[in-house]
Amino acid sequence: MTATFQPHLRQDVAVVVPAAGAGARLGGGTPKALRPLGGESLLSRCCRNVAQAPSVGLIVIAAPGDSVEFVSKLVPSALVVAGGATRQESVAAALAAVPAEFEIILVHDAARALTPPSLIEAVAAAVRNGQEAVIPALPVVDTIKRVDARGQVAATVDRAQLRAVQTPQGFRRGLLIKAHAAAVDSHTDDAGMVEQLGATVHTVPGHPHAFKITTPLDLVIAEALLEAGLCE
Amino acid sequence: MTATFQPHLRQDVAVVVPAAGAGARLGGGTPKALRPLGGESLLSRCCRNVAQAPSVGLIVIAAPGDSVEFVSKLVPSALVVAGGATRQESVAAALAAVPAEFEIILVHDAARALTPPSLIEAVAAAVRNGQEAVIPALPVVDTIKRVDARGQVAATVDRAQLRAVQTPQGFRRGLLIKAHAAAVDSHTDDAGMVEQLGATVHTVPGHPHAFKITTPLDLVIAEALLEAGLCE
Repeated sequence: MTATFQPHLRQDVAVVVPAAGAGARLGGGTPKALRPLGGESLLSRCCRNVAQAPSVGLIVIAAPGDSVEFVSKLVPSALVVAGGATRQESVAAALAAVPAEFEIILVHDAARALTPPSLIEAVAAAVRNGQEAVIPALPVVDTIKRVDARGQVAATVDRAQLRAVQTPQGFRRGLLIKAHAAAVDSHTDDAGMVEQLGATVHTVPGHPHAFKITTPLDLVIAEALLEAGLCE
Repeated sequence: MTATFQPHLRQDVAVVVPAAGAGARLGGGTPKALRPLGGESLLSRCCRNVAQAPSVGLIVIAAPGDSVEFVSKLVPSALVVAGGATRQESVAAALAAVPAEFEIILVHDAARALTPPSLIEAVAAAVRNGQEAVIPALPVVDTIKRVDARGQVAATVDRAQLRAVQTPQGFRRGLLIKAHAAAVDSHTDDAGMVEQLGATVHTVPGHPHAFKITTPLDLVIAEALLEAGLCE
């Protein structure tokens, strides 16, 4: 048998998970990443899926400042650092803790706890294959309209070119660091910062299970997917 | 006790349900509106919710041409007519069968089978209160990007003014008839036709349960909502 070069077995990927947010939408006082889903926290479920992606060599979590020790015990396989006041600051703090040998950085939401390992691997592979910024994206299925301040429809938007963006978002390390250093205003995603530098952001097909679990209804949906045995 | 005028008890609303589509996305050969959900078809579940809205006086279903009798037995409370080749033609066929005394017409998707009666009533009430075209709409929660033909990101779209549109969509009868008569190209929703006439389309808050059940995953979610007892 001839030995085959398997580049995906290089564990050259670090995954950064900002998890310092309070998450008012799910109710309760717990940080949102620690809300329970199927007997464990969103964060540990999320990291378990991430760790199953063969090319991931490191997970860095940015936790609330007073919960670093607690989160370290919860996810022993991850490096845990203190996050900042915003998502962007938390990503920057985690990024600063990633050793230089990791050339590919993925930024992932703890609330996308059911993201399949195959999607994580697909994003990493696209970066490894030469795309410096890669995001998973799904077609928009709803009819989308633009409204004015009074809630009246201003226009029906052509949705053919629209994509709903998910995570993990993957980057060449240097590009992501540069984007965070240059970012002046706040962004809803890291790709947005990279776009402002003029870099090209590529898409790979997203996955319906990678939805963000933010409302009590989302939790019901997530539990149902787990019970139906539909998740990887 | 003083008798109170209750305008919502006027059953002045006809609801039109186009249900002639084949619905490849849910798999199987059955018309998509007849796929089972919680022991009944999407269509009958949908119509049961519609009938619970106090101001609805008539439901007209546009069924596949060869299934008019079958659908009439399935939903005995509805008037069933033969639909057309497209959603738009089916709406027009159902609309033609609505008696002139119904001044308010709602167009509804059978696939939004868990739409609560309260949302149906809210749309009808907005039309009755003087808005000639009304759609339920939800804020867009995902980050949205515009991509080019190669799948590269062209721009991050400001989602603050974007809304994901649901049904039922409500109209003054005359306006909807005029819009259908004037429509030249195909539209993903009836409000789009009305917009082309220059009429003002208003929004009311949509409801998460009014999502469109089109994929096997959507069916899992819908069954979970029913089992959790979360639906009205």
